[in-house]
Amino acid sequence: MKIAILRERLAGEKRVAATPETVGKLKALGADVAVEAGAGEGSRILDAQYAEAGAVIAPAAEAAVKGADIVLVVRRPEAGSLKGAAKGALVIGALDPYGNEGEVAALAKAGVSAFAMEFMPRITRAQVMDILSSQANLAGYQAVIEASAAFERALPMMMTAAGTVRPAKAFVMGAGVAGLQAIATAKRLGAVVSATDVRAAAGEQVESLGAKFIMTDALKDASGEGGYARELTADEQAAQQALVASHIAKQDIVITTALIPGRPAPRLVTRAMVESMAAGSVIVDLAAERGGNVELTRPGEVIVHNGVTIIGFTNLAGRIPTTASQLYARNLLAFIETLVDKETKALAVNWDDELVKATALTRDGAVVHPAFAKAAAPV
Amino acid sequence: MKIAILRERLAGEKRVAATPETVGKLKALGADVAVEAGAGEGSRILDAQYAEAGAVIAPAAEAAVKGADIVLVVRRPEAGSLKGAAKGALVIGALDPYGNEGEVAALAKAGVSAFAMEFMPRITRAQVMDILSSQANLAGYQAVIEASAAFERALPMMMTAAGTVRPAKAFVMGAGVAGLQAIATAKRLGAVVSATDVRAAAGEQVESLGAKFIMTDALKDASGEGGYARELTADEQAAQQALVASHIAKQDIVITTALIPGRPAPRLVTRAMVESMAAGSVIVDLAAERGGNVELTRPGEVIVHNGVTIIGFTNLAGRIPTTASQLYARNLLAFIETLVDKETKALAVNWDDELVKATALTRDGAVVHPAFAKAAAPV
Repeated sequence: MKIAILRERLAGEKRVAATPETVGKLKALGADVAVEAGAGEGSRILDAQYAEAGAVIAPAAEAAVKGADIVLVVRRPEAGSLKGAAKGALVIGALDPYGNEGEVAALAKAGVSAFAMEFMPRITRAQVMDILSSQANLAGYQAVIEASAAFERALPMMMTAAGTVRPAKAFVMGAGVAGLQAIATAKRLGAVVSATDVRAAAGEQVESLGAKFIMTDALKDASGEGGYARELTADEQAAQQALVASHIAKQDIVITTALIPGRPAPRLVTRAMVESMAAGSVIVDLAAERGGNVELTRPGEVIVHNGVTIIGFTNLAGRIPTTASQLYARNLLAFIETLVDKETKALAVNWDDELVKATALTRDGAVVHPAFAKAAAPV
Repeated sequence: MKIAILRERLAGEKRVAATPETVGKLKALGADVAVEAGAGEGSRILDAQYAEAGAVIAPAAEAAVKGADIVLVVRRPEAGSLKGAAKGALVIGALDPYGNEGEVAALAKAGVSAFAMEFMPRITRAQVMDILSSQANLAGYQAVIEASAAFERALPMMMTAAGTVRPAKAFVMGAGVAGLQAIATAKRLGAVVSATDVRAAAGEQVESLGAKFIMTDALKDASGEGGYARELTADEQAAQQALVASHIAKQDIVITTALIPGRPAPRLVTRAMVESMAAGSVIVDLAAERGGNVELTRPGEVIVHNGVTIIGFTNLAGRIPTTASQLYARNLLAFIETLVDKETKALAVNWDDELVKATALTRDGAVVHPAFAKAAAPV
């Protein structure tokens, strides 16, 4: 069993799909591990460290992939880059299939079995494999760090000989994994934190972190599948917007984290709301990659509008790559452990396992995931 | 009595010497206040906000200075820019006279009475006027924010479903006002913090913030004047360096804050020490403006050496200008309150007051401060 780790191709993607820690454990599972030279560079992992953990360093991607039974990636690789892999090789990563159906079909055609880790079910057994949670947690942390760095004031209250400095007011929209970590980090730094979420259950978690929970009365609960929110009705949306509009004008830092799987990000903050904020305020839009929660967000950019800085980085977890890779690699390792027979030390995928069924996009030349099979089927 | 507030000329200096809050209080002292247009821009203060507080907005510096009895600045202005001020006008700011004796002489020649706020004695009555403390406090905070933003890992320990992430180790060198705030901020963010100082008394303060105090046995105490450290002997320096060398190799974040008034910054971190640190580590050198505590620091720049990021910003407080201006302006206001007769609402400088004697650089055409008068005297 050969496992290949590729260097990421996407510009600015500093994460890597395995670390020396997980390479050692993959070896213990019985795998030969090949790491493309320089794969860990962005996460400050040297080739020598991989080698010390037992990996062979391949000078280029082709050599790493050659004969591989499993290819580990952060981002979806181009189908062409997988040539030479074993027949039916598993390709495991954050494959981002929504809106990329053509690329998924190409992976099917290349004969690989592609697994989208972001479809891992949110069940207890799979928590350790949950890349969305591990990366969202870090994105929430990093959002506050980026906001603090861009903010022209101190976050904590400071009582000095020259008088008191009031603490910054931070508002977190969406109290999922990212939002809760953003709340915790902003609290750590001494900000006065409030948060909103359309899922009523989030209120208790927000308050347990010491933040104020803000929710419109018009909205009892909008919990959806898998811990995400459902889309709101027009009336609910209007009520929520009115509440946000009056609250946001008084905030110094706003962090938006609202995502609905497979849909564009909901628009939470309008241009008028941005313009109601004081100059010097900072907004971090964690949904920038899906179009943004903020009307003015430019994905991948930092802009200033009327003195308000809007940070639209599309890969916040990737901005603390060392920690992000560490957790991501552990997520992948935990999944691989379920795919290997511990006796024979060989690949033994149980295609009826709910984890496999939930994440498998392609198999035997076809797109097999129910959400995509139809789109890919010949008409 | 007319008080002028100038827009700062130094590139990147976003602070301003008065805020709408202090303008209101200067008015209450009986002053007319003229603010140069755009003076508050870098600190997010609009001309309209100054006007609302009672200031007249002057279209240019000349108009603001014309007939002024007091000119408030952050940085030392060029003598030429003070033409038109009242005879013997007070110029109050962070005048940075060391090494700038020619510029100080020029201020004397221009006939103004220049006050260097950084010479304010460290006595109880003058605490509220202590610009070094108010700005160092913010520099210490900002050092940790900058370090966190440059650091490619999370600072806090994180216990996640994918396992634990160890907290970052931060080491603060010099536990003065800046160092103590850096310790407090790094602790807030969840780092494991240690600190060193050559003044034995600092140990208790470091420990009261929950950080570990590290000091060589060879050094009992090196407290100097005014709460600063004295210079170390060669033996003491060697012992301190040996201790630091072994400690620093295990640190993720190092913040250096060692300054000796009127002297170049002591060299605490050698090239070899930097090279002993793991790639991905971050150093912030708060002494960059005085040449740096780190051998490799390039003042004003951020460099990467062997994977270690060295941040050499020369004006960290100026990187949170809104808060820095708020406190700086209050420091100046408090000093001015001692220079004005509350009954007559006119300037009434008591040249025998110890605050005045300590800070006055020039008067009646001469350099009068004992530390500079000799250098400026005709041979």
